[in-house]
Amino acid sequence: MIQIESRQNNTLRHLARLARDKKYRRTTGEMVCEGEKLLAEALASGVKIKTLLLRGSGKPDPVFQSLCSRAEAQGAGLFSAEPHIFALASDVETPQGVLFSCESPVLQTALPPVRSALLLDGVQDPGNVGTILRTADAFGLAAVILCEGCADPTAPKVLRGTMGAIFRQPLYQLSAACAIEQLHCQGLPVYAAALRAGSIPVTQISLGSCAVIIGSEGHGISEQTLALCDQKIIIPMAGTAESLNAGVAASLLIWEMQRAAGSLH
Amino acid sequence: MIQIESRQNNTLRHLARLARDKKYRRTTGEMVCEGEKLLAEALASGVKIKTLLLRGSGKPDPVFQSLCSRAEAQGAGLFSAEPHIFALASDVETPQGVLFSCESPVLQTALPPVRSALLLDGVQDPGNVGTILRTADAFGLAAVILCEGCADPTAPKVLRGTMGAIFRQPLYQLSAACAIEQLHCQGLPVYAAALRAGSIPVTQISLGSCAVIIGSEGHGISEQTLALCDQKIIIPMAGTAESLNAGVAASLLIWEMQRAAGSLH
Repeated sequence: MIQIESRQNNTLRHLARLARDKKYRRTTGEMVCEGEKLLAEALASGVKIKTLLLRGSGKPDPVFQSLCSRAEAQGAGLFSAEPHIFALASDVETPQGVLFSCESPVLQTALPPVRSALLLDGVQDPGNVGTILRTADAFGLAAVILCEGCADPTAPKVLRGTMGAIFRQPLYQLSAACAIEQLHCQGLPVYAAALRAGSIPVTQISLGSCAVIIGSEGHGISEQTLALCDQKIIIPMAGTAESLNAGVAASLLIWEMQRAAGSLH
Repeated sequence: MIQIESRQNNTLRHLARLARDKKYRRTTGEMVCEGEKLLAEALASGVKIKTLLLRGSGKPDPVFQSLCSRAEAQGAGLFSAEPHIFALASDVETPQGVLFSCESPVLQTALPPVRSALLLDGVQDPGNVGTILRTADAFGLAAVILCEGCADPTAPKVLRGTMGAIFRQPLYQLSAACAIEQLHCQGLPVYAAALRAGSIPVTQISLGSCAVIIGSEGHGISEQTLALCDQKIIIPMAGTAESLNAGVAASLLIWEMQRAAGSLH
């Protein structure tokens, strides 16, 4: 293990830049994750871990040590740094004792045949995108499609929200128009979650074999995209002033889709 | 409107302390909220607004100005401050242009007769508590009961997450043991959301008239509390490694409770 002592160390600067710079992540094909949970998930998924940075020089606990050994055996570079140096590479205020870089997931642009899919149109909040990926993974949704204007799925805050689902959930990046075209070619109807007159309550429609698109936190789905959809649907609520968090709304829709498909017992 | 120019100004210090100090909130019976959305919701709910602080000396837009006038007509003190002074009273890094203090909601300790209720046992993340209150409000749940170890519902991060639901959602604070006793006296079964052998999938049980308790993000429901519940239930998932965000899990349960009760069409 190599001890990093300088703030100018290249590995440290590389990790810090991965945490903060989306373009740099795209160029290098790497992203940076924090914490033991994500490390365990990354190792379980078989993703290639590049660099592992530990905080402090104290002896880590045995479980954690075994995770580090597995990463090293895979070819990861092992580094440690004192807390004030470690903090420079971290995105959060009270960072956990480990962070690592690994290969970013491939964002596929061609959809395989799927029974159901969730499209995100401009979901900008990284916490919401992370939560949605976590729920999609938990309920076994075939595809999440990131359309225009979504938070970068390799951003540290998204990765934290996924709790490891990022290493398992099939992820696609297509414009809404292309995605809807491909889904229509597969014979899947595309429903738009929209608070509009004429929207059908999800309690009155089967979501067992369809794609659902949800819009941005502030503005919903764009008019252009809405025009391409087959039907507008709505999660019925108890009043009119109320609304749901976008991550919650998407999670409810995934639950309804997967339940109607008979995937959850 | 009074311009605050000193960092030592008493009103400024009062607001800053409300944002950061739970005991001070409890002593004063006040809490502090940020943003136009929460201000509009507070005014609509009739809660008493005490102090309103605006950023900058620029002219606010007409809608916003009307909100301020309504607060002032209610007796709120109006203040403004330059951005660097304003920021001292704010909890967030990029504060919105307005913050205000108002009466904290009353946390009731006696349950009225309810058809259903959600109990939170040690839900510590303020974002999750905020999201859960928002969902409960959206689906018209009769009661959310905060048991031991939950995030303080008057903390700024909770209030942001509620998006105004804090001013509408009936909120109770009881120990889990007392709450369960009161619910049992009402004849309501209490179900524990728990990943255990023998837990019944929520797809196989009606949640139309019951109380559901969910546990902390890390540790679930305490053994003591679990022993008081009538049945353990589980949200079925597609695999075993997966899990749901606590705010999402609670939201799904509220949805199932309210749908089974016939409240959502």
